[in-house]
Amino acid sequence: MNGREEEPVFEVAIVVPKKREKEGDENRDCVEFLVQELKTAGLIVERVCGISDEFIKLAAPPETLGRAATELQIKKLTYIGMELQFEWDQVTAFVTQPDGSLFSWFERFRCFHHLIYRIVNRTEADLTLKFDDEKKRKQLLKNWALNWLDFTSQPVDEIYLYYGTKIATYFSFLGMYTRWLFFPAALGLALQLIDFGSMQLLVLPAFFIFIISWAVFFFQFWKRKNSALLARWGINYSLSEYKALDTEMNSLNRVHADHEKNFDANKPIEKKILQRDEWLGLLLRIRNNTVVALAIICLQLPFELAYAHLYEITESYTLKFLLTAVYLLAIQYYTQIGGKMSVILINYENNQGEESSSASLVYKVFGLYFMQSYIGLFYHALLHRNLTTLREVLIQRLIVSQVLENLMENAYPYLKYSYKKYKAVHKKMHEQGSSGGKRIRLTTRVEKEYLKPSYTACIGKELEDGLFDDYLELALQFGMIMMFASAFPLVFCFAILNNITEIRTDALKLLVMLRRPVPRASATIGAWLNIFQFLIVTAICTNCILLVCLYDQEGKWRIEPGLAAILIMEHVLLLIKFGFSNFVPEEPAWVKANRVRNVVQVRDMYSKQLLRSISNLEKKRD
Amino acid sequence: MNGREEEPVFEVAIVVPKKREKEGDENRDCVEFLVQELKTAGLIVERVCGISDEFIKLAAPPETLGRAATELQIKKLTYIGMELQFEWDQVTAFVTQPDGSLFSWFERFRCFHHLIYRIVNRTEADLTLKFDDEKKRKQLLKNWALNWLDFTSQPVDEIYLYYGTKIATYFSFLGMYTRWLFFPAALGLALQLIDFGSMQLLVLPAFFIFIISWAVFFFQFWKRKNSALLARWGINYSLSEYKALDTEMNSLNRVHADHEKNFDANKPIEKKILQRDEWLGLLLRIRNNTVVALAIICLQLPFELAYAHLYEITESYTLKFLLTAVYLLAIQYYTQIGGKMSVILINYENNQGEESSSASLVYKVFGLYFMQSYIGLFYHALLHRNLTTLREVLIQRLIVSQVLENLMENAYPYLKYSYKKYKAVHKKMHEQGSSGGKRIRLTTRVEKEYLKPSYTACIGKELEDGLFDDYLELALQFGMIMMFASAFPLVFCFAILNNITEIRTDALKLLVMLRRPVPRASATIGAWLNIFQFLIVTAICTNCILLVCLYDQEGKWRIEPGLAAILIMEHVLLLIKFGFSNFVPEEPAWVKANRVRNVVQVRDMYSKQLLRSISNLEKKRD
Repeated sequence: MNGREEEPVFEVAIVVPKKREKEGDENRDCVEFLVQELKTAGLIVERVCGISDEFIKLAAPPETLGRAATELQIKKLTYIGMELQFEWDQVTAFVTQPDGSLFSWFERFRCFHHLIYRIVNRTEADLTLKFDDEKKRKQLLKNWALNWLDFTSQPVDEIYLYYGTKIATYFSFLGMYTRWLFFPAALGLALQLIDFGSMQLLVLPAFFIFIISWAVFFFQFWKRKNSALLARWGINYSLSEYKALDTEMNSLNRVHADHEKNFDANKPIEKKILQRDEWLGLLLRIRNNTVVALAIICLQLPFELAYAHLYEITESYTLKFLLTAVYLLAIQYYTQIGGKMSVILINYENNQGEESSSASLVYKVFGLYFMQSYIGLFYHALLHRNLTTLREVLIQRLIVSQVLENLMENAYPYLKYSYKKYKAVHKKMHEQGSSGGKRIRLTTRVEKEYLKPSYTACIGKELEDGLFDDYLELALQFGMIMMFASAFPLVFCFAILNNITEIRTDALKLLVMLRRPVPRASATIGAWLNIFQFLIVTAICTNCILLVCLYDQEGKWRIEPGLAAILIMEHVLLLIKFGFSNFVPEEPAWVKANRVRNVVQVRDMYSKQLLRSISNLEKKRD
Repeated sequence: MNGREEEPVFEVAIVVPKKREKEGDENRDCVEFLVQELKTAGLIVERVCGISDEFIKLAAPPETLGRAATELQIKKLTYIGMELQFEWDQVTAFVTQPDGSLFSWFERFRCFHHLIYRIVNRTEADLTLKFDDEKKRKQLLKNWALNWLDFTSQPVDEIYLYYGTKIATYFSFLGMYTRWLFFPAALGLALQLIDFGSMQLLVLPAFFIFIISWAVFFFQFWKRKNSALLARWGINYSLSEYKALDTEMNSLNRVHADHEKNFDANKPIEKKILQRDEWLGLLLRIRNNTVVALAIICLQLPFELAYAHLYEITESYTLKFLLTAVYLLAIQYYTQIGGKMSVILINYENNQGEESSSASLVYKVFGLYFMQSYIGLFYHALLHRNLTTLREVLIQRLIVSQVLENLMENAYPYLKYSYKKYKAVHKKMHEQGSSGGKRIRLTTRVEKEYLKPSYTACIGKELEDGLFDDYLELALQFGMIMMFASAFPLVFCFAILNNITEIRTDALKLLVMLRRPVPRASATIGAWLNIFQFLIVTAICTNCILLVCLYDQEGKWRIEPGLAAILIMEHVLLLIKFGFSNFVPEEPAWVKANRVRNVVQVRDMYSKQLLRSISNLEKKRD
């Protein structure tokens, strides 16, 4: 890649199980045949013999990738700002990556995948894909994961080049969030240290207003930053267009798959079909959400409340500790079942495309964790007005559990890796029999990489990768610090310490502990943005109630049941008002299908013709 | 137009002041020369001699319009769903209007304007544009304005063909709104008539929840309907894209005008300029909004409260009537000054394009009217808990003032027209001297049309046409019925009666009383949508307070000042949360400029080439 054709970078490897030598020539022939096929396909091949498997490392010269991209009809941004189908002959028309290479990691991965599976389908061998690029990784390790002095700054472009848009977006969000956290953390610390005397009564509400404004500003500026990132990575859409695009394309494909080719949403019958599909999908989504909500309220809520109540009435520390341990075990189990259930439910929704399924999943799983993380805190804060326990639990959650989680996150893959390595070595030694005073070591990078665990989410592999867990952790932390800000301003300091370590440990985890993840296309924080926005609104309400509790120590401000009912009704209605528009789309499905069909048609029909002109133009310009 | 070339439809006329005969040949020559020029330009010309002016009626064969459109580089939707510059030679590639004609009224108007002003700039005569198309108008009058039996249904496509997108959007919104109003009106009537006995306590809150859900649903479905309308009228964008498009194009033009031609937002210096412009614009907007808000609070609020207070304490009906008369006079004056001020302030903002200026104006003027219309009602309802007066004032506003306004709306232009006609006739009679037993009549349509007043907004001509007033009226009515729904459920019945008459009188006004307005491009209800949404949120809060007042007749539910302060803080923060994102755009200006520049570039560069291919395709398909 990188324009330096002289030294090929091996990025992908094929694993072939190494059979016993006695099985003889047939196997060697088979692998040899595969290598030959790969070479004919234009790839640079290097064979590495591992302990239990054999590895075929692959690199691709730009031309091979280009030809594959042409076959795949990959859409790529051209210099005139339009996305067109890639053509190797008109390569000068296309915008290159920040480091000068032609394809992003996501595109390269698709090309490799295409090249290899084309051969594999012919030869019918059992293959696994994995990745390896030692040089870039070492550089990232130095500049990023081990660069603790930088606090929040990260080499976002390099991350993008190595991991693709989705992971780079996560880290740039995490960095910006941590940087912005400095303001409330400093203020929170000041509030804790300074005694304001008679002004004390006004300080907390002021802090609360500041926090909410801070959060609102932060997310607006994050959207701006995300737009700028999209522009830098050659994605030529506005943020909202980009979010809509994926869904639209997918829905179009679905429509095309369901019905005949020359589907025209202008015709009354097809319009009717689309409308029926749209409303049916809506009903299914409502049903599933009801199921999840009921499960959370009827099963999880009593359990959580029971734990919180027991914690409240237990006196001795040992009992408290035991109780927490039992609770943690039980809840782990419960959330896992809940996550699995959500994934199953998602499959019964006719969501339009992967993007929309994953958003639906995010909402459902977050609902579970929301209940799990906060209901106990609410119980202590609101029902018992017990702010000491609240602070205790907050510190416990933010420090102990996050530190533990970080350790777990890193230790678990390492242990898994060690076990696999041990098993491989053990097997080898067993095979070699008693010749064994000599220790066997894994020497090749490619084999080590193969044994590392992959970057997967706790709730399943299909829809999400490990970023799901990381975003979930971030969202839960954000909810914790925002919703109880006025009860305990110091939380922001804990959060910032936490995040600074989180950046580096997450980086380390990705670079060292895990196999290089399969790149994903998404380049926004997606449904998580809505969750953060929802948490801000919740924070407004909870902080108000906290302030009422704080200032009304004597219980004088009694709220009559009638007044309380009306206030609750008001808040529910406000929620409906702002939540409803997410349920029914602004644009009827048939209008959208028509529009997208047109856009796709024109792009496909005229792309070659356009390309030639652009390419000529670029050549003239040079 | 209309494909029937044999009978030309005269749509535009030029007015030339008729000079005395004694001035002789020179004048006749001048007009004759103009007519010759117009004929050379390809127009069909008919001269009509009016009483004090001379009229040159113009019609254009499709080819003439097509050539003009090519010169103007009008963008038009093609059959492949892309907008391209119009080319007369490739006419088959472009989508036609619902009635089979090639150009919409908006496009035709632009072409006429272009053709005439090209000649005028050469000949330097003093000209006015006006419009006349007897046949279509008669048809509309029959099908639409005088078709009282249809209640809410209107021939939207015909309105679109005759008046263009903006007016058709207004009427289809008005129609849908009135249709949806039937549900709450029926329920409101039921609530008034049926005695619920012991359930009475629950009925009002249930009605309130229904009303809010109704409103939320209505606006979501209106957006869907608007999308469908856009698709029907050949505007191939989604609703949000369409809203953004105008602003973007305009901002791009502004950038191009400000700086040199090959402006590239990727260069650091130009990026900096764009960023500076963006933030400066934001500051200016904040400053202006502060000025308007202060003016409303410091000047208007005390005045309104004084009136409401005097009304409250006055006993006799004659005094009340006198007071209201004085108040109405004063407030008329005040809002006019306010509107003028707002227009002046707008000019000091660097708004990006006409769309955004007009939105800014809508918000400012609505602020004024909001205070004027509702503060008195709040005073009666909340401070004095005087629901009888509230109902009285509501009925007064909804019936008396709306009926009066409708009368005024129609009578004022008619009187103006009569006066102009009288003056013209009188002048003519004076000229003819004592020969005058014979009465002079206006016989030609074109002259009558010329004398009619134009469709203008109360706040000035530049940014808005008369639709501004109509939308304002609708928004104020919507606020009135929503915000006080639970105090007086019957208001919905009054509103629906009102709107059914409003549809027909507005139609009559446009068709008979006023000159055919200049078509405008906008095809959504624009900034008014945000105002309606804001009114729903306000309605949630006010109805809650009303319910508290209603059920707490004995004053037992006292709210402690601390609790009240916290509740107010909560609502203010929620407002900030949901309002803020309108202030800072999601996408930095430089990113947007870059993106739009690319889109425009490709369209302009390759349109001819694409067109030829589409045109060939269409020919083959036929």
